[in-house]
Amino acid sequence: MVNRLRLGTDERRAQLLGLGLRLFNERAYDAISIDDIAAAAGISKGLLYHYFSSKHVFYVETVKVAAEELIARTRAPDELPPEQKLTRALDGYLDYVEQNSRAFLTLMRSGVGVDAEVSEVMERTRRALIKRIVEQGLGLGAPRPILRVALRAWIGFVEGASLDWLEHRDVPRVELRALLASALANALQTAGVP
Amino acid sequence: MVNRLRLGTDERRAQLLGLGLRLFNERAYDAISIDDIAAAAGISKGLLYHYFSSKHVFYVETVKVAAEELIARTRAPDELPPEQKLTRALDGYLDYVEQNSRAFLTLMRSGVGVDAEVSEVMERTRRALIKRIVEQGLGLGAPRPILRVALRAWIGFVEGASLDWLEHRDVPRVELRALLASALANALQTAGVP
Repeated sequence: MVNRLRLGTDERRAQLLGLGLRLFNERAYDAISIDDIAAAAGISKGLLYHYFSSKHVFYVETVKVAAEELIARTRAPDELPPEQKLTRALDGYLDYVEQNSRAFLTLMRSGVGVDAEVSEVMERTRRALIKRIVEQGLGLGAPRPILRVALRAWIGFVEGASLDWLEHRDVPRVELRALLASALANALQTAGVP
Repeated sequence: MVNRLRLGTDERRAQLLGLGLRLFNERAYDAISIDDIAAAAGISKGLLYHYFSSKHVFYVETVKVAAEELIARTRAPDELPPEQKLTRALDGYLDYVEQNSRAFLTLMRSGVGVDAEVSEVMERTRRALIKRIVEQGLGLGAPRPILRVALRAWIGFVEGASLDWLEHRDVPRVELRALLASALANALQTAGVP
């Protein structure tokens, strides 16, 4: 309750979203009520509604935060050589989905709470990752159509692989990373990138 | 109304599902009411409810029919050489998603109506396609983990590519098919399949 008095609006919002990320990763969307969230945050339901008008709105906002975090975690220092950059980016991705595996699996399986709005956040995130590969990885402006398709396809490859990897947990990370890197190299080559 | 008297239960059900596939491909899920479906079928709302207890149940059943159709369309004659088999299967897939592009895009983007149940149908379909590649394409029993991951990843690749292809329609089908085939060959090779 001391916190309640001290936190500013932005801080409170950020604190709630951080809490939401943890809750949605620990339990199913349906198993979490607005009361649970308010109780976990140590605030009243009324105050929670002041920040987020519904559980679904709250969920969408946590997905946006998660997407930003994923984009940040897959950013590799510019000065690294291309191959190391890719390794670093893939590790960042795999670390993140591993640490948030339940939330990631729910999201990918269109678990309850996933709708067109959440899906749009996901697609926007994929576009941001593709843009980074094109501009920073390949040093191109806009990709030609076949390259754009190839990169969107590769993102699907990474997601499909991650889903299966997290579900079964019987493939060493280093083998998975090699599979993802090889698929990217092959997709680029097929799309005519030298 | 003549039809109404003549059709048996199974025929009526099949007719309704065929109609559903068409309707969900023409219009958004939210833009279709139970009344629209009944009217299009020339039956009463009561009779429609006799077959499907809600619009969502009806939608899930149409997705199941679509999944079976997709599995059938991607089946290539056993006597074809492997490469031609793959070409045939990929063409079957691309034909199907092209003919049902609106429904496919909605499904993949978790449009309204897509939930954990629909998602489970989609995942089951992916598993059936992977099983066929493993057993009939590669002549193996169960895949080793890395091969299973690689094939699940490749299905994600095909879906990602199809989504982008249908959204932009600026890549010739033959180039797309070559991209998909190359990605499969590379994934198999990386997974240690000779």
